[in-house]
Amino acid sequence: MIYLDNAATTKMYEECMDVFKDYACNNFYNPSALYSQSLIGGDLLKAARQNIAKRLTCNYQDIYFTASGSEGDNMAFLSTIKQKKGKILISNVEHAAVFNMASHLNEMGFDLDFVNVDRFGRVDIADFRAKMTKDVILCSIMHVCNETGAINPIKELCKIAKDVNPKVIFHSDGVQAFGKIPVNLKNLNVDVYTISSHKIHGPKGVGAIYIKDSVHPKTFIYGGGQENNIRSATENVPGIAAFSKAIDIKFATLDEDVQKSKEIQKMIYDYVQNFDDCIINTNLEQSSPYIVSFSLKNVRGEGIVHNLESKDIIIGTGSACSAKKGLKRIPLALNLDGAYHNGMLRISFDPKDDINEIKHALDELANAIKIERNLQK
Amino acid sequence: MIYLDNAATTKMYEECMDVFKDYACNNFYNPSALYSQSLIGGDLLKAARQNIAKRLTCNYQDIYFTASGSEGDNMAFLSTIKQKKGKILISNVEHAAVFNMASHLNEMGFDLDFVNVDRFGRVDIADFRAKMTKDVILCSIMHVCNETGAINPIKELCKIAKDVNPKVIFHSDGVQAFGKIPVNLKNLNVDVYTISSHKIHGPKGVGAIYIKDSVHPKTFIYGGGQENNIRSATENVPGIAAFSKAIDIKFATLDEDVQKSKEIQKMIYDYVQNFDDCIINTNLEQSSPYIVSFSLKNVRGEGIVHNLESKDIIIGTGSACSAKKGLKRIPLALNLDGAYHNGMLRISFDPKDDINEIKHALDELANAIKIERNLQK
Repeated sequence: MIYLDNAATTKMYEECMDVFKDYACNNFYNPSALYSQSLIGGDLLKAARQNIAKRLTCNYQDIYFTASGSEGDNMAFLSTIKQKKGKILISNVEHAAVFNMASHLNEMGFDLDFVNVDRFGRVDIADFRAKMTKDVILCSIMHVCNETGAINPIKELCKIAKDVNPKVIFHSDGVQAFGKIPVNLKNLNVDVYTISSHKIHGPKGVGAIYIKDSVHPKTFIYGGGQENNIRSATENVPGIAAFSKAIDIKFATLDEDVQKSKEIQKMIYDYVQNFDDCIINTNLEQSSPYIVSFSLKNVRGEGIVHNLESKDIIIGTGSACSAKKGLKRIPLALNLDGAYHNGMLRISFDPKDDINEIKHALDELANAIKIERNLQK
Repeated sequence: MIYLDNAATTKMYEECMDVFKDYACNNFYNPSALYSQSLIGGDLLKAARQNIAKRLTCNYQDIYFTASGSEGDNMAFLSTIKQKKGKILISNVEHAAVFNMASHLNEMGFDLDFVNVDRFGRVDIADFRAKMTKDVILCSIMHVCNETGAINPIKELCKIAKDVNPKVIFHSDGVQAFGKIPVNLKNLNVDVYTISSHKIHGPKGVGAIYIKDSVHPKTFIYGGGQENNIRSATENVPGIAAFSKAIDIKFATLDEDVQKSKEIQKMIYDYVQNFDDCIINTNLEQSSPYIVSFSLKNVRGEGIVHNLESKDIIIGTGSACSAKKGLKRIPLALNLDGAYHNGMLRISFDPKDDINEIKHALDELANAIKIERNLQK
């Protein structure tokens, strides 16, 4: 199997499995129990928080574990908004967790506005500046676009926002950034930042959220008081330990991963560029190096995916979450002509992938496109 | 290590680890992706839902996966309450997830009343009847008390509630019941029921909630639309598959587990009964057979736990969640004299435990009590 949908989910590292198993089957105690402090290896949860904080450049006390990126994105709104009304500002290519949460709050009476993106999915700074009015209480702009890989100028946007309203909460969904590109929260100056484990070869069902202490977050899940009373539940120690291990592995080669990925990305880009009637949605200059997104005219992306699947090659059709429902939100935001809406495809690789396998996958992709176009004639 | 705190959490079965690993490292695909239906073994999530539904006697479409029992308990309120006001009725020994969620809603303007329990933690039916007035919109009564093991007469309570207000939502926290005693939701006739994986040797970070379709649950986590749009997030397939495996293992011997546990429970009960100045909080006739709770006069339970820990024996001090904060809510609800408040201890075993190890633990417990009482002289 040649798996090129790493932006959807990743294979868990074997090293993470070993750690997981140790905390599931041996050192399995409930960390909230009186006796567990000594048993659970000092303070594993604190160490994992510190590990994340070190990578993000933030205080470890501001890291809260969650069960997913989506949960974190929801908390970014529900745990921070204290007003009864006000305006929420998000980009129009945000992940469904942000988009649908914000839409729900809109139904509940909050105002909601959408910042336009350029044709590569990157936030239009002028449009952000125009819409970032004094009544905006919360901005949510993703760090890396899961569809196109576009990297947003979070530091600049955050500064614009805070210059207008120093009390605005600035959230960034960092699920596609953390462990893939350098992230420095002190530098970005965001208030809230969401990350996820399963996008970087850690276990599914684990994530974390950074919430600056000055935000004074509200409880998201009530219960025994875990996670500093913000999110109660018996801590998923095996999952958190395995997530921390995945972080260690990813960050050990972060710089070389970025370099290697840029080369692979360029190679894929150059190949895809030769397809007939194809628009590339990824801007090599301003994107995460792990993704190439493109749209084929008058082609069903679904047909391509299934054809490749039959050849043991996996690529994605936009994000798994939005693809499922066949939403047109993303192609519309990218201002794609209608003829290209159904043909949106995403190749997202891992820098450790075999380059020859990727080349083979591209050849098969070219064949699949030919077949699909012939079928439709 | 002799581990006698299985009501807090359990060691994950090795068989569950094998299943977990397969879905984390081999068949790791995102189940929401187009291609994954064939890859992920038909419909693993559906099969796991059906497995739970079969054990609970309910429709599998009414099962939603969660990340914890606490999350389920929170959803039981937030996903079902549609009124802006009304009365909530819970027992005064509910788990912190129910107790604190209900208290939060009370602060938000809902009325809240507490049903008394008898000295073994079982709901007082007469008191329930008195407080179950027409304005009650939601009742939450735990099936098995995590502190004392008391089994509540859920079917009877549910009938009383619905006779008064046919529209009442009846929730029962089944975290300490599922996989341990037979549970038939059709028979109990509850609307919402919460279960958890890590209490029955499945992974932490996984749970499920039954919500009767007539309740029309509201979204708890917004996003890609997973879990029938009630709780979005990339599905924790390895965790869910491992939970399903734990269910298979537990239910294969459920009846004999209950019988064997009754014998062990009686043995522990008889031993504990001989301690000086000791009140037993578990009623053998109306309790889950896996728990014996007792309170020692003028003894710090914490001291006992640490003493035993030094001898590689683990017992609990009430629930991990409440113990952490040294809350007095439970001993007060049980109407325990103040001299017994700090000496509350809980032995919760697994029917597969070695009986001689448990006997050894009890002897060490007796010694620890002597030492603790001498220290305090």
